[in-house]
Amino acid sequence: MLEWLRRYRRAMLAGDISAGIVVAMMMIPQGMAYALVAGLPPVVGIYASILPSLLYALFGSSMTQSVGPMAIISLMTATALAPLASSGTGLYLVLAAQLALMSGAVLLACGLLRIGFLANFFSRPVMSGFTIGSAILIALAQVKVLLGGELPRFHLPSAAMGIASLLALLFARNYLGALLRKAGVRATAADIGVRLAPMLVVVAATALSVGFDLQAAGVATTGAVPAGLPGLNLATSSAHWRSLVQPALLIGFMTFLISMSAAQTLALKRQEKLNSNYELIGLGAANIGSALSGGFPVTGSISRSAVNFAAGANTPLASIITAALLATALVAPTGWLALLPLPALAATIVVAVLGMLELSTLRTAWRYDRGDATALLATAGGVLAMGVDAGVIIGVVLSMGTLIWRASRPHIAVLGRIAGTEHFRNIERYPAETRTDMLMLRIDANLFFGNVEAVNQRIEDELRSHPATRNLVLVMTAVSSIDTSALFGLSELNQSLKQHGIGLHLAEVKGPVMDRLKDSDFPAALNGEIFLSAAMAWDGISSAA
Amino acid sequence: MLEWLRRYRRAMLAGDISAGIVVAMMMIPQGMAYALVAGLPPVVGIYASILPSLLYALFGSSMTQSVGPMAIISLMTATALAPLASSGTGLYLVLAAQLALMSGAVLLACGLLRIGFLANFFSRPVMSGFTIGSAILIALAQVKVLLGGELPRFHLPSAAMGIASLLALLFARNYLGALLRKAGVRATAADIGVRLAPMLVVVAATALSVGFDLQAAGVATTGAVPAGLPGLNLATSSAHWRSLVQPALLIGFMTFLISMSAAQTLALKRQEKLNSNYELIGLGAANIGSALSGGFPVTGSISRSAVNFAAGANTPLASIITAALLATALVAPTGWLALLPLPALAATIVVAVLGMLELSTLRTAWRYDRGDATALLATAGGVLAMGVDAGVIIGVVLSMGTLIWRASRPHIAVLGRIAGTEHFRNIERYPAETRTDMLMLRIDANLFFGNVEAVNQRIEDELRSHPATRNLVLVMTAVSSIDTSALFGLSELNQSLKQHGIGLHLAEVKGPVMDRLKDSDFPAALNGEIFLSAAMAWDGISSAA
Repeated sequence: MLEWLRRYRRAMLAGDISAGIVVAMMMIPQGMAYALVAGLPPVVGIYASILPSLLYALFGSSMTQSVGPMAIISLMTATALAPLASSGTGLYLVLAAQLALMSGAVLLACGLLRIGFLANFFSRPVMSGFTIGSAILIALAQVKVLLGGELPRFHLPSAAMGIASLLALLFARNYLGALLRKAGVRATAADIGVRLAPMLVVVAATALSVGFDLQAAGVATTGAVPAGLPGLNLATSSAHWRSLVQPALLIGFMTFLISMSAAQTLALKRQEKLNSNYELIGLGAANIGSALSGGFPVTGSISRSAVNFAAGANTPLASIITAALLATALVAPTGWLALLPLPALAATIVVAVLGMLELSTLRTAWRYDRGDATALLATAGGVLAMGVDAGVIIGVVLSMGTLIWRASRPHIAVLGRIAGTEHFRNIERYPAETRTDMLMLRIDANLFFGNVEAVNQRIEDELRSHPATRNLVLVMTAVSSIDTSALFGLSELNQSLKQHGIGLHLAEVKGPVMDRLKDSDFPAALNGEIFLSAAMAWDGISSAA
Repeated sequence: MLEWLRRYRRAMLAGDISAGIVVAMMMIPQGMAYALVAGLPPVVGIYASILPSLLYALFGSSMTQSVGPMAIISLMTATALAPLASSGTGLYLVLAAQLALMSGAVLLACGLLRIGFLANFFSRPVMSGFTIGSAILIALAQVKVLLGGELPRFHLPSAAMGIASLLALLFARNYLGALLRKAGVRATAADIGVRLAPMLVVVAATALSVGFDLQAAGVATTGAVPAGLPGLNLATSSAHWRSLVQPALLIGFMTFLISMSAAQTLALKRQEKLNSNYELIGLGAANIGSALSGGFPVTGSISRSAVNFAAGANTPLASIITAALLATALVAPTGWLALLPLPALAATIVVAVLGMLELSTLRTAWRYDRGDATALLATAGGVLAMGVDAGVIIGVVLSMGTLIWRASRPHIAVLGRIAGTEHFRNIERYPAETRTDMLMLRIDANLFFGNVEAVNQRIEDELRSHPATRNLVLVMTAVSSIDTSALFGLSELNQSLKQHGIGLHLAEVKGPVMDRLKDSDFPAALNGEIFLSAAMAWDGISSAA
C-alpha cells in the first residue's frame, strides 16, 4: 500500500496526468449512464466515482485499475432495490448507499480474513455467460428510454435523438479509430479519441436539446441536480438492513470477481503482482466511500481500466487526479447536468454493453470443450430467464458442477513394462508387457472427495476384468495430494482387497504426499508395500503369492 | 434392474428370508420413532416403510440397501413443514406426503438426467460434521419426550420409563453382544440380537404401560391409529407447493447423499458395482411410493442396511419380504400400536442417533488435515446454530471452498537436471544443475479455472526471481487435463511472455491433453516449442537466445 508513492519518479507524472484527465472525461457520461441503470438520478453516478477512485488508489492492489460505477453491478443494485422502494424516491437513494456500505463491509471483511481465493469460484466460460446475459438484460431495459416509450409505441423526437446517438456511437466504435489513424493520429491517441465519443455525443445531444428546446417537445432529461457534494444518509429500519444482506453478499461477490478479472488482465500486461486480498480491501474501502458520498455499489471496470492504462497511467496517482477533476466538476455550476437528454445517455449504455457481448470465449469453448460451452450458454440463459441474482448462483453451481463432473471421471491407465527397460507405460498407447497375477494402475489425478468413489469403482471394474490379480499396484506419479476423504477411500479399498486376498501396493509416491500419509494409520494398515518405483514393485512382488 | 431375479438361486432364499424378518422387526420401532422425529403420528413411519422398500427393490442399484424412514431426513422434514402447518393436523400429513412426492420427483429426474455425480458435492469430513450436528439436534429435541416435560420440569412416571428404556438400550448396545457371544451365540446372530433390542424394549415398555395403566398416570402414548393401509391425499394450494420446492431440493439432495454413502459401504464389502443414476431412480421411486401411501421422505439407512446384509440378505428379495411382513402387521389388528409409550420410543431415537455421533472421522482428519477437520467442525456448528437446511448449504460451500482453496495453492517445482543423466527433478529435493537462461517448472496439478490464476501468478513470481530467464519450459507430466479457463490462462501467459521476449515451451504433454490442445489456436500461437521430453527441451533450447 502506497509503496508506489515511495518509488514515484518524475517521469511518471505526465502519463498519470493525461490518464487522469481522459478517464475523468470518460467517467462523467459513463457514471451518469450506469446510475440510470441502477434506477438512480444520473448525478449519483458522479458521486460514486470520486471517493471510490481515491480510496481504491490508497488501498487497492492494481496500479491502473479504475473503480466506479459498472453496468452489471448497477443492474444488480436495481434488482436488489426494486422490491424495497420505488426508483426516484428518497428511500431508494438511502437504500442504494446502504447496499454499497454493506457490500463494502463484506468485501473488507473477506480481505481481512484473507479469503481472496474465493475469486476462483467462477470459471471463465461461466463468467462470460453471466456477462453476456447481463448485457442483454441491460440493453433491453434501455430500449424504452432510447425510444421515449415502450414498443410498439415511441416518441418521435426522443427516438430520433436516441437512434442518432446510437448510430454516432456505433460509427465511432467501428470506424473512428481507423479514420483518426489514417489522418496521422498515433494509434494510442486514436484509441483514446474513440473512448471519448460518448462524452462528445452527450455534449452534442445536450446542445441540440437546449438549442431547439426539445425538452418542451417531450424529450426527457436528467432533471434537477443538487449542487455541491453529497453526504451520508443512513437511517432506515432493521427490516431494510436484513433484506439487503443477501443482495449485499451477491453484489460483493460479483464486485470482486469483475474487478479481479479486470485487474488480472492488466497485471499480466504489466507483469505485476496482484494480491487478491488487497484487492478485496481496496474494493471494500471504495464501496464504503461510495456509501459515504451517497453513492451506490461500485467496482473495477475493465473498459475504463484499459483506457487508464492506454492513456499512460503509471500509478494510482492517475485515479487520484480523476477524482479531483470529478469533484471540481461537481462544485462548479452544475445546472448543465440537469439538461442531458436521456435518449442519448441510453444510447451510450446500449453501445457500452454491446462491447460486453463478446463471443470469442463461446467460440473457443465450443471448439475446445463442449461442456464448458454448455455451461456458458446455460449461465447466459439463466440470467435472462431468472435474473442476475439467480445468475450468480447458477454460475457458481455450474462452475462447481463442471468441476465435480470432470472429477467423477478420473483418468486411470493400466500400465505395462516396455520390454527390457525399467519404463512403464499405458498399455493402450504403448506395446508393453503385463503380468496376469499383478495389475498396475496409474491414477492421473489428485485424490479428493470429488473423485474418490469414482477411483474406487474404476479399480473394482479393472479387478473384475483381471480376475487372476493377486496384487494391485497403484502408481502415484501424478498424485500430488490426497485429502481426508480420499484417505478413507484408500483405507476402505485396502480393507476390501484384504478380505478378497489381494495385496495393495503403492509405487512412486511423491515426497510431500508420503510425508502426509505418515500422519495417518494408512501405511501401517496397508496390506502390501510402498515401493520407490514401478520397476521395484514389478521385481519385488513375487508371482507365487 | 431385476437382473438379480434372473440369476436367483435357491441357496439365496434362506438368507433373504431371515434378513427380511430381522429388518421388519427392526423397522417397526425405528419407523415409528423417526415418524415422531418428523412430527408425524408413529404409524406413518410404517406406511413409509412398505411401498418404498418394495419399489427400491425393483428399481434401486444396491442389492442389500434397506430404504425407509431415517433420522436426518425426518429432521429435515420437520424443519420444512414447521412453518407451514401444525404437527398433528391433517394438513401436516398431506404436506409430508407432498414433500415425499416432490423430492421423489427431483430424485427421479436427476436419475433420468444421469447426474448422479452430484453425490460428490460433499466431502466426507463435511458429511460427518453434518451428521454429528443433526444427531445432536435430534437427540436434544427428544429429551422433553423422554422426560415427559421441558427441563427443569419432568413427569416422574414418563421420565422413569424413558430413562429405564435408555439404560436398557445402552446396555444392549454396549454389552449384549459380548454376553450373547459368551453364551455361545454365533457372532453374526449376536449382532442381530443387539439390533432387535429396540423392538424388545418397546414391547416391554408397552406391556408395563398397559399392565400398570401408566396412560392414566400421564405417560403419553402413540394414540389412535387408523386400521388398514392408507391412501394418497394431495390437494393443497399452489402456495404450499411452491414453498415446498426448496425443501424438496435439499431433502432430495441429502436423501441421495445418505443413501449413496450407505450403498457405497456395502458395495465395497460385496465388491459389487454401484450405479449412482440407478440409485437416484430407486430412491425417486421409493419416495413417490412413500407419498402414495401417505408417508414422508425416506432414504437408505446405513444402520438398517448393515443389519440386512449381516442377517444374510443376498438380493432385494429380502426387502420385498420385509415389505410384505410390515403390510401384514398393518392389516392385522393394530389396536396395540396405539399403546406404545412415547418415552420409550424417544429413548430408541436417542440411542439410535448416539450411533451417528461417530468421532473417528474427526480424529483422523485432525491428525491428517487440519483444514478438513475445521470444515467438519464448522459444518457441525452450522447445523446446530442455523438448522439442518442451512447446514446442507454450509456443507456444500465448505466442501467446494476447501477444494478451491487447495487449488489456489498448486504445487509447482523448479526442475534441474541430475548431472550426467536425462532425469529432471525438483531442485529443492535433489542436487540438480540448472541454467540461468532457462527456467524449467513442473506443474503438479490439472489446470482448471480454480488454479489458473494461481499458476500464472506463481510463474510470474519465479520469473521475477530468475530475471535472466530467456526461455520458460513447463513440464506437464502431472497435467491430465486443461479446461477452457486454463487454456485462456496459458494463452495470456504466452502473450505476456512474448511481449517480454521470453520463449514459452511445453514438455512431456500427455497424449490426451495434446489431442485436445490441437482443437485450439494455442499450439499455433505458442512462442516456443512443444518437446517430447524435458531432456529434449534442455538440449534443444540454445542458450544463445
